[in-house]
Amino acid sequence: MFIDGLECSNFDREIFQELRAGGLGCVTVTCGFWEDGLESMDALVAWRALVRANDDLVRVATTAAEIEAIHAGGRTALLLGFQNSSFLAGRIGYVELFADLGVRVAQLTYNIQNDVGASCYDLEDAGLTRYGREVVGEMNRVGMVIDLSHVGERTSIEAVEHSAAPVAITHANPASLVPHARNKSDALLKALAARGGVLGVSGYRNISGEYAASADAWAEMVARTVDLIGLDHVGIGSDLGRKVVDADLRWMRQGRWTRTTQYGAGSAANPGKQPPLEWFPDTTAFPGLAEALTRRGFDPTEVAAVMGGNWLRFYRQVLPAHPPTSEE
Amino acid sequence: MFIDGLECSNFDREIFQELRAGGLGCVTVTCGFWEDGLESMDALVAWRALVRANDDLVRVATTAAEIEAIHAGGRTALLLGFQNSSFLAGRIGYVELFADLGVRVAQLTYNIQNDVGASCYDLEDAGLTRYGREVVGEMNRVGMVIDLSHVGERTSIEAVEHSAAPVAITHANPASLVPHARNKSDALLKALAARGGVLGVSGYRNISGEYAASADAWAEMVARTVDLIGLDHVGIGSDLGRKVVDADLRWMRQGRWTRTTQYGAGSAANPGKQPPLEWFPDTTAFPGLAEALTRRGFDPTEVAAVMGGNWLRFYRQVLPAHPPTSEE
Repeated sequence: MFIDGLECSNFDREIFQELRAGGLGCVTVTCGFWEDGLESMDALVAWRALVRANDDLVRVATTAAEIEAIHAGGRTALLLGFQNSSFLAGRIGYVELFADLGVRVAQLTYNIQNDVGASCYDLEDAGLTRYGREVVGEMNRVGMVIDLSHVGERTSIEAVEHSAAPVAITHANPASLVPHARNKSDALLKALAARGGVLGVSGYRNISGEYAASADAWAEMVARTVDLIGLDHVGIGSDLGRKVVDADLRWMRQGRWTRTTQYGAGSAANPGKQPPLEWFPDTTAFPGLAEALTRRGFDPTEVAAVMGGNWLRFYRQVLPAHPPTSEE
Repeated sequence: MFIDGLECSNFDREIFQELRAGGLGCVTVTCGFWEDGLESMDALVAWRALVRANDDLVRVATTAAEIEAIHAGGRTALLLGFQNSSFLAGRIGYVELFADLGVRVAQLTYNIQNDVGASCYDLEDAGLTRYGREVVGEMNRVGMVIDLSHVGERTSIEAVEHSAAPVAITHANPASLVPHARNKSDALLKALAARGGVLGVSGYRNISGEYAASADAWAEMVARTVDLIGLDHVGIGSDLGRKVVDADLRWMRQGRWTRTTQYGAGSAANPGKQPPLEWFPDTTAFPGLAEALTRRGFDPTEVAAVMGGNWLRFYRQVLPAHPPTSEE
């Protein structure tokens, strides 16, 4: 089963069809970046409507068994995720409520420090807060994936250490291969791997450098990442932003926290939306990734692990065993 | 099984123990009156914590089967209810989200007109709004009890007619027996009964007049109500407010909608919290209600119907057959 650890596309029927064409068994979608409690509920309402309208193509999964069943039924399983903890509105109790509503992945911070910890772009990182430790514990309890992709180094290390369950970096690359604030230190990646976590390697141009040049270059980055942290801990997190437009990019990068232009993973010299990768314009190109891994020397078992098997094992460990009920 | 169709007590362990002592199988509790979306989520968080801390006495039920199982296990089942539709924050999609979080009863309005319809205290009642019709339909779909206790006459009639499922008046009395804005016309009660609904007869002093004088007087009101709408449609809705203090009463009556003193079901001449009924100080007195009904001439089958059987049949019809899951 092919699994994409994170996408931030503006999903619609066409993009769902691309998931099917690419043979995707499971994708984590982004339900929000800066949205508050009510706005996040609104996002869930909108996602339910979108999924119901495309029930022949996709379904929401809340357990690993559901991912497998949805895949076996010829559909793509969607994991509902937020790229920030703002949906919690500062309430520890909302971790459980949103889990009951199907949310399965949450990044602790997006691009600026919040009540949980620091982002990868903050100049100072004071680590996981007292509330942050509670959030991590509560996410462990309800079976929500802790995502550290945009999270600061110290906060991330402390989250790895504090978490009782393996944690994820759904979409980033090793900084030792591509130096960038969004990429991750070897120390963090090794700590994550030592606790059973998974890194979703991304081809996103802004954080992939020369490895974005071709599927083979990307496969080389995967191979070097496997050398660094071991085969079991490497998956894919494309960070694909199909149909993301400038207004979306502004919302992602600036949210409501600044009046100044922000470039996110870009820069003043490189301010705009990145053009699609020629070799990965959308998820229909997923089989090509497997072929590139094969050309790079991965055997079929290894290819299967990177293309989805590692994520599925991780989800089996981290997601709850049963669908949510209000009475537990 | 004894069932109380509505209480607004400030529940704590002592009050849960009273439920057990009274032999209550199920009680609908009030999670909020004027609270907005986030405040209502906060209320659910608080209710979950309270119920978990008293798991030996009470559990939340989301289906009729759960009510019966919780009762069989020696606990009291709680149905989570709101006495207003403000928790929806104007969102049709929140009916389903809050249902997924366990909410099973909602009054369409509290004491002032809202986006759904008019309350029983409004001088004009323009009926169920377009949004209100959608809310009723959505409550039908997810299996949420539509409560008309504080709802205006025309809005109520239209809700009865528009609803595909039987509806409830969880706590009120026939206005033909006790004239009061909070009590219900014969026309409304008969329409409700004709569609399979249930009225919870209350002993609350402000809306019970002479029938609040004793358990036997209350039983007489029950008998006259049965004469009016039939045995199958009469249950109990005590409206009990154990440990409700003046600040609670102010919140119920004034919410945030007025700077002036409001008396709710009371009056300027009768402004305060009503003293407890000597014959019904708390739910430990429930067996006494059954005895009073027997003295009034109800046979054991009829007593059982009024004391809980009618509510249970209603819940079997209206509540969903299965506990909520995020994936349906």
